[in-house]
Amino acid sequence: MAIILGVDPGSRITGYGIIRAEGRQIEYIDSGCIRVGEKPMAERLQTIFHSLAVLIGEYRPEEFAIEQVFMARNPDSALKLGQARGAAIVSAANSGLAVHEYSARQVKQAVVGTGGADKSQVQHMVQALLGLSRKPQADAADALAIALCHAHMNQSILKLAGTGGKARSGRVRQQ
Amino acid sequence: MAIILGVDPGSRITGYGIIRAEGRQIEYIDSGCIRVGEKPMAERLQTIFHSLAVLIGEYRPEEFAIEQVFMARNPDSALKLGQARGAAIVSAANSGLAVHEYSARQVKQAVVGTGGADKSQVQHMVQALLGLSRKPQADAADALAIALCHAHMNQSILKLAGTGGKARSGRVRQQ
Repeated sequence: MAIILGVDPGSRITGYGIIRAEGRQIEYIDSGCIRVGEKPMAERLQTIFHSLAVLIGEYRPEEFAIEQVFMARNPDSALKLGQARGAAIVSAANSGLAVHEYSARQVKQAVVGTGGADKSQVQHMVQALLGLSRKPQADAADALAIALCHAHMNQSILKLAGTGGKARSGRVRQQ
Repeated sequence: MAIILGVDPGSRITGYGIIRAEGRQIEYIDSGCIRVGEKPMAERLQTIFHSLAVLIGEYRPEEFAIEQVFMARNPDSALKLGQARGAAIVSAANSGLAVHEYSARQVKQAVVGTGGADKSQVQHMVQALLGLSRKPQADAADALAIALCHAHMNQSILKLAGTGGKARSGRVRQQ
């Protein structure tokens, strides 16, 4: 069994999603958004850092997963996204969590089955896979998708390792 | 009297500089580099966050100053710089320090007297202003220049406020 925290950071909205994965069983725990759009920059980052620390303290995830950014749109938005990412990663690392990164393509492939899926397909599949009564907010859905991707990758690695799909208590570091 | 921590973050090297400013009196306390070039990304950010937290714990600065980034070179380097910046800013904010930002132009103007000064002029003036026996390393010099800029701005604001250059214990937030 592993509790996984997925995070989709942004300079205005940071989505988070928490699931429990046990072998093939996946259970929804919580998801939501950290909204910091109107604050000064340092306060935004501090809020992301602190809010994630509170969530980590509350749910005690064993795993932390975040989307890898390959191509940012432009230098200015990349800098802002980088700052939010830095605050989120430092919050996880500071709580002793290993940080796992997945490309957008890996996340879509794991959740929808195709690396070219669009956002609404991801939202739809997240809702279906977790048996949610309604669609999660877009950033929360992305964060849940990242957590689901990590659960899926862990599962795949366990299968390769011949443990028959049983969850391991140790951490598996993804590259 | 105020102890000022200036930081010049980077994804490989983060420079820091600590000075004490009392009215027009400026005293060098410490400077150096946090080198993280060879580690995985999350460890780099964690090292920046933790190293600054240790420095803040040791020297108890009242002020934190960092360079504002207007134009990053390209999205990839902007993202990496943003992450390092985010880790540094969160470390300061987490220790209860207000974060002051200055543009490269403001820093050069304050230290060299012209916004178009080059790096070696900044290094030279930092050495001269702080009476150092040798040139500080480039990133440490940049961090000291940012701290000196903050001391200068504080001083200017105090002059404008008619306090005759006496240092105040309160914080002055720069925009």
